[in-house]
Amino acid sequence: MVDLPFPKGFRDMLPNEALFRSKMLRRIEDIFQLYGFMGIYTPKLESMKLLRAKESIGEENKLIFELKNEGLGLRYDQTVSLARYFIMHSNLPLPFKRYSIGEVWRMDEPQRLRYREFTQADIDIIGGDSVKADAEIIAAASKVYEAFGVDYKISINDRKMLDEFFAKLKISKENQLKIMRAIDKIDKLGITGVKELIKESELKEEQVNEIIKLISFEGTNTEKLNYIKSLIGEEPASEIENTILLLESYGIKAIPSIDFSTVRGIDYYTSIVFEFKTSGENAALGGGGRYDNLISNYGGKQIGAVGFAVGVDRLLDVLKFQESKEITPAEVFISNIKKENYQYALKIANDLRSHGIKVDLNDSDRNLSNQLSYSNAIGFKYTIFIGPSEQESGKAKVRDMKSGTETLVEIQKISEFFKASTTK
Amino acid sequence: MVDLPFPKGFRDMLPNEALFRSKMLRRIEDIFQLYGFMGIYTPKLESMKLLRAKESIGEENKLIFELKNEGLGLRYDQTVSLARYFIMHSNLPLPFKRYSIGEVWRMDEPQRLRYREFTQADIDIIGGDSVKADAEIIAAASKVYEAFGVDYKISINDRKMLDEFFAKLKISKENQLKIMRAIDKIDKLGITGVKELIKESELKEEQVNEIIKLISFEGTNTEKLNYIKSLIGEEPASEIENTILLLESYGIKAIPSIDFSTVRGIDYYTSIVFEFKTSGENAALGGGGRYDNLISNYGGKQIGAVGFAVGVDRLLDVLKFQESKEITPAEVFISNIKKENYQYALKIANDLRSHGIKVDLNDSDRNLSNQLSYSNAIGFKYTIFIGPSEQESGKAKVRDMKSGTETLVEIQKISEFFKASTTK
Repeated sequence: MVDLPFPKGFRDMLPNEALFRSKMLRRIEDIFQLYGFMGIYTPKLESMKLLRAKESIGEENKLIFELKNEGLGLRYDQTVSLARYFIMHSNLPLPFKRYSIGEVWRMDEPQRLRYREFTQADIDIIGGDSVKADAEIIAAASKVYEAFGVDYKISINDRKMLDEFFAKLKISKENQLKIMRAIDKIDKLGITGVKELIKESELKEEQVNEIIKLISFEGTNTEKLNYIKSLIGEEPASEIENTILLLESYGIKAIPSIDFSTVRGIDYYTSIVFEFKTSGENAALGGGGRYDNLISNYGGKQIGAVGFAVGVDRLLDVLKFQESKEITPAEVFISNIKKENYQYALKIANDLRSHGIKVDLNDSDRNLSNQLSYSNAIGFKYTIFIGPSEQESGKAKVRDMKSGTETLVEIQKISEFFKASTTK
Repeated sequence: MVDLPFPKGFRDMLPNEALFRSKMLRRIEDIFQLYGFMGIYTPKLESMKLLRAKESIGEENKLIFELKNEGLGLRYDQTVSLARYFIMHSNLPLPFKRYSIGEVWRMDEPQRLRYREFTQADIDIIGGDSVKADAEIIAAASKVYEAFGVDYKISINDRKMLDEFFAKLKISKENQLKIMRAIDKIDKLGITGVKELIKESELKEEQVNEIIKLISFEGTNTEKLNYIKSLIGEEPASEIENTILLLESYGIKAIPSIDFSTVRGIDYYTSIVFEFKTSGENAALGGGGRYDNLISNYGGKQIGAVGFAVGVDRLLDVLKFQESKEITPAEVFISNIKKENYQYALKIANDLRSHGIKVDLNDSDRNLSNQLSYSNAIGFKYTIFIGPSEQESGKAKVRDMKSGTETLVEIQKISEFFKASTTK
């Protein structure tokens, strides 16, 4: 096997990890549905023409996994597919609230906690033009992190507000995008590094200083709002203010904190942008924002949209899913003491399974000791022993694998026994 | 949008279709877990070296979607990935019973009911060398189709038994594979077409006639077993006989029918092979078999394995999922009669959602009539009206959208009201 290379930046998951992930995806889907989002399905491949449209991702164009055949590539996010989908299917209800959970691929340099295949759980509202939609998205996203007990924080900003700010400073459109991308690197470069980068745009010293002053401004949301209002007036700050106000009615644990340096790396965002991070390590958990021009840029109608993506792999890593011990949800293993008891064991398995009790049995040729080692290795809560005497008396010996207690249970009552035990 | 091509052979799913699919995938996963299978996760990409190894898929080599970069390709099934996974992770419990549900890709010619991206739900048992494992796999697969009320039938055969038969006829190894591939085309070509194809291998007329006689032999399982035993002896027919015998203990609805023309198109199968089809239209639902050499061929230890893949897309099509009317599992829509009632509507939404009731609300700026059209279009069972008088009196007006009945419910009791209504 040594000569069969395993691709760099990809990962397998062991059964305990995959079980943890599967439960997580279901829980996330449940939460999305709780907020009235509807699922859609789109292919994992899209035409390169769509993926490479300049409106899409920006400088990360080179990160696309391209196929040899037929002008196709692997999607690098689910938003571009959503935009295509929305344009192609004209009868969707408006506002269209959708979720989608699935893999995306980026030919990024592999490094710790950055994978080339990763799963995103997205929610979006198309045609919800008011900040109510922004708040609904942020609240549902918060609920996901709260469901897993993650101590998160949210930073929020508004690109349209920044545009206004740049306009006041008389900075050209072209330079605005460059500055935005420089600011996006603040986590890597720090404020000094960002300053150096911004200087490359040949701004006046005063302009540079104003930008640095804004993005390093510290204080409460109110203080930040007052500051930005003093520079550009009340109105351009009202969206962010109203979004935060609405979120207070949702009763979420972390009210977003205005952060003028939060800009998000993807080009299609137009106004409100936000990022979720862990409180402690500052690890990115997910992010999103409003992209009011994406759909019209692809040739659809002009319609506003806002969305968010949970970084599922990051969330798994933050929750240390590798340490989870459970590798199967099955709780019962049925062993047959002698070979000839297998068919009887099978009948009991059928009975339990038909009552919804998850059961494994000795579907290999093993002696009792090997069956017990297997039951221990998998971590079943109970092992049932079926031997000649059990078969004859119509009873089964049930061992609680943790306490070692053994109970003789009548075959007729065995599903009731486990129904009572497993719901305890 | 007309100039953005949508790739041929792929499909989007609308919300009703995606909801149907999502429920189906959960149900399939539940059934797999009921039988003690454990989930694993492997990347959707594998190295081309693995995908192209001659042990893999056989003549379908050309069907692989290859990436431009780094020698990678999209997996065409999940079995090859499982073999790699099993070899790379040495501490897996034995027998290793695993499931995996996910997309695979084949650069097949697109046609009706054949997609280039489709979902497979796989179960496999590695190291379960006895026919007990074969029976367990077939039983779990049957349970999937039974869960969805599909009227299915199973055909079963044994390649090792066929090998024995060919050996008796003194047919060379090389010709055996050719004949097997010819037989695999029986659904397309019919018995006459297969005969023509077999003749190309320059066999003696007598040999051809014996083969045709076998694959067109009609009768009960017992009659078929007696016939094959008369040709090759008792022992080579015992595996298939014992598998069927065990399946009778499982109480599944369709006992497999021996079909000497069932060979399966993939090269890695070694003995028992089986296919599930609908009873009526004869549409393929899924298939599998035993592949005892795949893992050792890739450099792992010699260990037997048997597996099955549910063709999820085929199952969706057979069940006419496009006709499903439900587009969201959310049952309640909260409308705010006046703009200023939104925040109050939000509080009710929070309350209901915190009680697990799936709720959508007016997170756009719409008048009441547009809110009602939306609620109708989505198909919510209930619409709650919150206006100034409701807000003041602490009550909410709940309309049953089907009967039109309206009930005034106290805000404090609203979650109880829906808990009672939605569990009815």
